[in-house]
Amino acid sequence: MKIGVLTGGGDCPGLNAVIRAVVRKGVGVYGHSFVGFRDGWRGPLEGDTVTLDIPAVRGILPRGGTILGSSRTNPYKIADGPDRLRATLAAQGVDAIIAIGGEDTLGVASRLADEGVPVVGVPKTIDNDLAATDYTFGFDTAVNIATEAIDRLHTTAESHHRVLIVEVMGRHAGWIALHSGMAGGANVILIPERPFDIDKVCAHVESRFATRYAPIIVVAEGATPLAGTMSVKEGERDAFGHVRLQGISGLLEAEIRARTGRESRATVLGHVQRGGTPTAFDRWLATRFGLHAIDAIHDGDFGTMTALHGTRIDLVPLRDAVAELKTVPEDLYAEAEVFFG
Amino acid sequence: MKIGVLTGGGDCPGLNAVIRAVVRKGVGVYGHSFVGFRDGWRGPLEGDTVTLDIPAVRGILPRGGTILGSSRTNPYKIADGPDRLRATLAAQGVDAIIAIGGEDTLGVASRLADEGVPVVGVPKTIDNDLAATDYTFGFDTAVNIATEAIDRLHTTAESHHRVLIVEVMGRHAGWIALHSGMAGGANVILIPERPFDIDKVCAHVESRFATRYAPIIVVAEGATPLAGTMSVKEGERDAFGHVRLQGISGLLEAEIRARTGRESRATVLGHVQRGGTPTAFDRWLATRFGLHAIDAIHDGDFGTMTALHGTRIDLVPLRDAVAELKTVPEDLYAEAEVFFG
Amino acid sequence: MKIGVLTGGGDCPGLNAVIRAVVRKGVGVYGHSFVGFRDGWRGPLEGDTVTLDIPAVRGILPRGGTILGSSRTNPYKIADGPDRLRATLAAQGVDAIIAIGGEDTLGVASRLADEGVPVVGVPKTIDNDLAATDYTFGFDTAVNIATEAIDRLHTTAESHHRVLIVEVMGRHAGWIALHSGMAGGANVILIPERPFDIDKVCAHVESRFATRYAPIIVVAEGATPLAGTMSVKEGERDAFGHVRLQGISGLLEAEIRARTGRESRATVLGHVQRGGTPTAFDRWLATRFGLHAIDAIHDGDFGTMTALHGTRIDLVPLRDAVAELKTVPEDLYAEAEVFFG
Amino acid sequence: MKIGVLTGGGDCPGLNAVIRAVVRKGVGVYGHSFVGFRDGWRGPLEGDTVTLDIPAVRGILPRGGTILGSSRTNPYKIADGPDRLRATLAAQGVDAIIAIGGEDTLGVASRLADEGVPVVGVPKTIDNDLAATDYTFGFDTAVNIATEAIDRLHTTAESHHRVLIVEVMGRHAGWIALHSGMAGGANVILIPERPFDIDKVCAHVESRFATRYAPIIVVAEGATPLAGTMSVKEGERDAFGHVRLQGISGLLEAEIRARTGRESRATVLGHVQRGGTPTAFDRWLATRFGLHAIDAIHDGDFGTMTALHGTRIDLVPLRDAVAELKTVPEDLYAEAEVFFG
Repeated sequence: MKIGVLTGGGDCPGLNAVIRAVVRKGVGVYGHSFVGFRDGWRGPLEGDTVTLDIPAVRGILPRGGTILGSSRTNPYKIADGPDRLRATLAAQGVDAIIAIGGEDTLGVASRLADEGVPVVGVPKTIDNDLAATDYTFGFDTAVNIATEAIDRLHTTAESHHRVLIVEVMGRHAGWIALHSGMAGGANVILIPERPFDIDKVCAHVESRFATRYAPIIVVAEGATPLAGTMSVKEGERDAFGHVRLQGISGLLEAEIRARTGRESRATVLGHVQRGGTPTAFDRWLATRFGLHAIDAIHDGDFGTMTALHGTRIDLVPLRDAVAELKTVPEDLYAEAEVFFG
Repeated sequence: MKIGVLTGGGDCPGLNAVIRAVVRKGVGVYGHSFVGFRDGWRGPLEGDTVTLDIPAVRGILPRGGTILGSSRTNPYKIADGPDRLRATLAAQGVDAIIAIGGEDTLGVASRLADEGVPVVGVPKTIDNDLAATDYTFGFDTAVNIATEAIDRLHTTAESHHRVLIVEVMGRHAGWIALHSGMAGGANVILIPERPFDIDKVCAHVESRFATRYAPIIVVAEGATPLAGTMSVKEGERDAFGHVRLQGISGLLEAEIRARTGRESRATVLGHVQRGGTPTAFDRWLATRFGLHAIDAIHDGDFGTMTALHGTRIDLVPLRDAVAELKTVPEDLYAEAEVFFG
Repeated sequence: MKIGVLTGGGDCPGLNAVIRAVVRKGVGVYGHSFVGFRDGWRGPLEGDTVTLDIPAVRGILPRGGTILGSSRTNPYKIADGPDRLRATLAAQGVDAIIAIGGEDTLGVASRLADEGVPVVGVPKTIDNDLAATDYTFGFDTAVNIATEAIDRLHTTAESHHRVLIVEVMGRHAGWIALHSGMAGGANVILIPERPFDIDKVCAHVESRFATRYAPIIVVAEGATPLAGTMSVKEGERDAFGHVRLQGISGLLEAEIRARTGRESRATVLGHVQRGGTPTAFDRWLATRFGLHAIDAIHDGDFGTMTALHGTRIDLVPLRDAVAELKTVPEDLYAEAEVFFG
Repeated sequence: MKIGVLTGGGDCPGLNAVIRAVVRKGVGVYGHSFVGFRDGWRGPLEGDTVTLDIPAVRGILPRGGTILGSSRTNPYKIADGPDRLRATLAAQGVDAIIAIGGEDTLGVASRLADEGVPVVGVPKTIDNDLAATDYTFGFDTAVNIATEAIDRLHTTAESHHRVLIVEVMGRHAGWIALHSGMAGGANVILIPERPFDIDKVCAHVESRFATRYAPIIVVAEGATPLAGTMSVKEGERDAFGHVRLQGISGLLEAEIRARTGRESRATVLGHVQRGGTPTAFDRWLATRFGLHAIDAIHDGDFGTMTALHGTRIDLVPLRDAVAELKTVPEDLYAEAEVFFG
């Protein structure tokens, strides 16, 4: 068999570990050959390929990024996209595809599978917001990076009288904020699932200062205030059409200053969270996803996706996999609230 | 309620995170009070206590070790042990105990629970060899430390002609070796569950050298060769009654040299693996174990132990929990073998 | 002798290492006793002290922050300040002071020394902008934290089409930006000493994209554009009287977008750079500063400050020490420019 | 000009940073071209070369190891070695050589320079034992790795009753042991320059246990006991002709056990210390050495070597550079002794 591999969507530590595992087991155990498609679905669409064999995957296990490149190209948004894609597969003699990516990439994979293309998916979302699996790789790395930043802030918290804000990833789900905030011992954690009450945030800030320590607020980039509670207008735009106060941490800084007179100091981690070497857990998970994905190809289990349940890797239908966003449930957030203030 | 807390057995990153969570929720949500028992079961046996309140647990979340101290004291191996222990609890007005520890500590907890003492357990084993739970805290930290060491060896592997050996913890179960070896991209992983064939090890060593890279062998301290296959005698003892070649890595060094003429260079991580700050995952798990343990106390669920299943914390009977050692199954080891050589 | 110790100004990893070394050698070798003054010069001003003996300094070597607290209190800005301070010293029987701090703290120390108070200084500036010494502790830690962030961005740089900006500390001197940018392989480094030409920055951005990699810009918080070259107005203020686009990274984002149409993604490290455990170098330097400061006290070398020259610790006059800001010289910046674009 | 570059001797983080700086400035500023010689002096001896241009050095700054490979080949130990080497240079049209390496590699460079070959050296010794320069790259990385290991041991030191031993690199000079032991807060530091008195070591061990903490001993691999003071015979050899108790940490374990009855637990870091990504300081130093080496070539300053003095990079004669081993002086060791016990 000749198998095509591609990676789509945003960066995520562990992508290379998946690719390596797929190729090592595919070549070494099953005797398959591989072709790498460049830049996600753009590769099979345009026939842009790279060599993908044992030497090509040597040494890539600990490296962030992806040796295949990535993009957000969607063949279903391009005229004749799926047909051109099928034509490439036929021309290249590709028998099956392993698609590693998030909601968009796997959504394409799911439609292609429905239309008879032999595809197996590997889920990738640094935000960990996929209902079909306990965890996705990259998430543990992001949480550790954010936790280390919070750790460093703690040692300065005693001698400062500023509110320390850490803005982490998470547009629609607060998993990174919740885990890093809990692991780092944050005094407030704000997530998209729960519009925050700025009065309560300020109350936590003041009660924390009463202990002689500065408060640390961990805020997901997608967190929002309860409607109508902020004096700073979020929607206001500057001359370039962009929100005037950049990001939620900027908004929080201004509002806390306006209400309490206290200065804040923000740390915005940005892309640092999605780069660099993966943690051991993420390499383990990504490697096992790769091994089970190539098994699925070998067994003809097309239209499926690898998923972690407990310590077991299962295959679940691609269709179900992309159906639902996994958000932070109330009871889990309540566990974290024990430590607020 | 007044609740006693103790930690027993060897060190493990995350112990302090459990203690903090127990006290923060116990005091803040339930209004309980606490007493810390010093050095495991020695504390309640001898009435040796320390103050355990909110200020006492401030800042301990990221710290390795245990603020309560630890020991291997077993009240059942001491005349009148259990009676003296009960007497202390009565004298101190302690209503229930949270015991954090491994097989031995929880074994005592289980017998005490059977005899009517209100106990809840929190499992602790850095080796991750407890069947009742998916993971125990401390394990992820140990695996990451070992993986970082392997990462560093990889960059020297090209310019060297030596076999690089990394000895990690694991007397009876090879989980740390398996996870770190797989995450680190080891060329051979040796675990206690599978006596190794030195011929195969040497074959992997040679096939690796053929790629111009030096081989990296990860070996659990409890790994052993197949009986009768080593020319170096393991049992031989020196003038002090100790095994002549120290540890399994020393044995491997000598045997590989004898068979292939190749020199090895060993890294023995030792206690470094069980010290220092816990990873985000271990803090998260330890914190959640603490929260659910105090819930169990509050709900009167005595004789139970916290356990992780997927992303859920459950309570399982203490009796079952200590019944069985979780070892690496064949199929999981086979996944790792894909990358050997 | 009885010696008072205080720490002033902003946080800096290594403060505790200095305190520990002073006390360990002072008590253990010279037989002196110590008193800790709380919160910088506020301590001796108000007679606010803490016990400072061998047990008090146990375990503090690797910890960020300062066990003595800090403040920016200046006795010369308070009526009768210096007299009240002298009165406290007399009342407490304090024979000499070791003052650990930056420009302000040592400026006070210098004036007190001129007026006959027996003071020895230890320099502290995370920005490394003190002319009298090769390096100050805390700087190496900050540079490593920033470098690790840049490293992580590099692995995402290939798959992204965004400009990656890292804002680091440095209001008046660009040492952290220069060292971390050079160690991290930045494509542009912007420092306060050299007002930047936004045209050149954009040219570097475009030439970098031509290599298929995204550009990484490291910018010191105090960097400024050449006058009149930016279309975005820096001085514009929002309803709260604060600069509308927060910080130099926000300004760069907007201007680069306006000129090239390219989106940027900023990482703002903030206080993370000045917290947490010091690097080995900073502990070594801080420890040696402490040892030589207590030697200076013992030898009666008052009015001096410790300084690093090569691998040697010297004493220099406090007066000279605070006289001049050490900025990045042209020829050193030119070394970094070799790697731009 | 066409310039050959080679790396010789053992691994050392920072080698790639030197190579990158040489090529980036050589091509970008001076317009020179380069050829990489494989495996140290073996390359020019056998004419074994690799392409060395801008793309070849992309992304190598943070990587350990060396893209050129290394060896201990010495042309002066091979018949007609220097002549064959000169013949290769002529055949390849190589005008000058940059040799990056330790005592042996630079010793060859020095003789070649004396014989008229245009050579510039860059010193490399992870042990930091070169008198001509304040520091060499790789050393700071090794010290940080050892210090992190010691940090982790500290948190386990309270709950244990074992002596914790850390064996670090340093056959002839104790710099790594001294710096990491001091930065890590070791209770005893043993270095090759000062044969140790086992009675004193055991006294420190006992006095440390009296504080309820376990002692941490940092020992350089080349440290030796005072003659005739150990009951364990060091020279005794096993059936394979190797010392029976492996390494100095094994010897210490046995002797401490024999004298005090206390068990020890050793951590042997081995090659982990010389692999992996360099610290920011080492990248900065290595990069600057590279920049100044290519300047030296350009200026015709042959027969010289780069050296760090304070914050300045100087050129020193190759001849002097390799003349003398820099060992730990008495007064510096005395600084560390303040913290013993």
